[in-house]
Amino acid sequence: MTYCVGLKLGRGMAFMSDTRTNAGVDSIATFRKMFSWTKPGERVIVLLAAGNLATTQAVVSLLDERAKAPQDRSPSLLETPSMYQTARVVGNLLKEVITGSAPAGQSQDAFGASFILGGQIKGTEPRLFMIYPEGNFVEAGDDTPFFQIGEVKYGKPILIRAYDPEMSFAEAAKLLMVSFDSTVKANLSVGLPLDLLFYERDSFEIGFQQRITADNAYYRTISSGWSDALRAAFKSLPDFPMS
Amino acid sequence: MTYCVGLKLGRGMAFMSDTRTNAGVDSIATFRKMFSWTKPGERVIVLLAAGNLATTQAVVSLLDERAKAPQDRSPSLLETPSMYQTARVVGNLLKEVITGSAPAGQSQDAFGASFILGGQIKGTEPRLFMIYPEGNFVEAGDDTPFFQIGEVKYGKPILIRAYDPEMSFAEAAKLLMVSFDSTVKANLSVGLPLDLLFYERDSFEIGFQQRITADNAYYRTISSGWSDALRAAFKSLPDFPMS
Repeated sequence: MTYCVGLKLGRGMAFMSDTRTNAGVDSIATFRKMFSWTKPGERVIVLLAAGNLATTQAVVSLLDERAKAPQDRSPSLLETPSMYQTARVVGNLLKEVITGSAPAGQSQDAFGASFILGGQIKGTEPRLFMIYPEGNFVEAGDDTPFFQIGEVKYGKPILIRAYDPEMSFAEAAKLLMVSFDSTVKANLSVGLPLDLLFYERDSFEIGFQQRITADNAYYRTISSGWSDALRAAFKSLPDFPMS
Repeated sequence: MTYCVGLKLGRGMAFMSDTRTNAGVDSIATFRKMFSWTKPGERVIVLLAAGNLATTQAVVSLLDERAKAPQDRSPSLLETPSMYQTARVVGNLLKEVITGSAPAGQSQDAFGASFILGGQIKGTEPRLFMIYPEGNFVEAGDDTPFFQIGEVKYGKPILIRAYDPEMSFAEAAKLLMVSFDSTVKANLSVGLPLDLLFYERDSFEIGFQQRITADNAYYRTISSGWSDALRAAFKSLPDFPMS
């Protein structure tokens, strides 16, 4: 499994991804699931990956190759005229890789993967997409300003309740850590370290990027503090009237 | 989907179940998923059901018939010598119904169901079981003092963090309501009204039973109060240090 979140904020975007991959509980490994491409002053593109690791690595490698070889027939990630076209490039590549992996006539489910794609290209607004294994995609809007992929359930209630489009990056990082902590505690297939990235709107460069390891002091504060805060919140509510 | 929880407490057991069944989002209905059998002063047996409604209703109907006709070859729920044997009766019946429903040679998955079974028989301790579609079962112990069936993920983090074996029934009801509220808010296939039941150890009668409807004042207090309490808990944690 995997857990990745992309949040669209008034001041930009915040991304977080875990790094655990597994093929059974006795075969786990650490792989980066957050990728970015930058043309300073012109565009920033961030990609978070969930699903079959061979599929997502193939897509990222092909995107990398194309970014380096602009003569390639498909427009490179650094050449697309808009984020919408960028999402199309990634979606088409994803579909191609999945279709090419599955033996003819057989189910493609085992090769499936999905992406969260966010970024901004000069002259356009920041945009955030979720890309499906079929290659199509949806875009975040004001009603649904964030996307999750992978093990999405445990960490969703706090995202729904505490997300605020006007929050600072420091608050957004706190929200992401609480959401990830609940997920890491509940599902062994989601694990530290975590990758954190902020993109400030109209900056056209990556504002902040950090790998959060298990001994990160702030993560440990949040992890133990959230348990205590939840218990205190629970205690603050009135007990059930038994009569 | 469904959501049911059985909690084992120092003072007895608490049970909660939702009542929504669905076959697609355009075909929803309300059915009771909590059942109980009592021989006052001698035994109390509580059953919570998740899965294929035809399967769970068949099992409960057969258990009912056998409870009324003690000459039946299988020991009735009111005759079993122990909770372990009660779990075997329910498990075997469940397996029989599932096997009998699936066309020969075809997958039985669509007919699957599972149960939480709790209760006490005079001369023995209260015991809590989870029964699988295969008819086998596991028992709750001190390390895992509660079982969930159905849509278990959204409501699990608060159960893990706020459960305390010494909690009162009034606190247990609060915990169950918070867990159910998080689930109801996240999954349309889990819905009110909720059924709540307490069994006090060594009482050999059902201590308290209530149906919680959407206009229940306490439920509404918890539902809105928990959102506020969660946001306050979140605000109480320090923000991420950006430097």
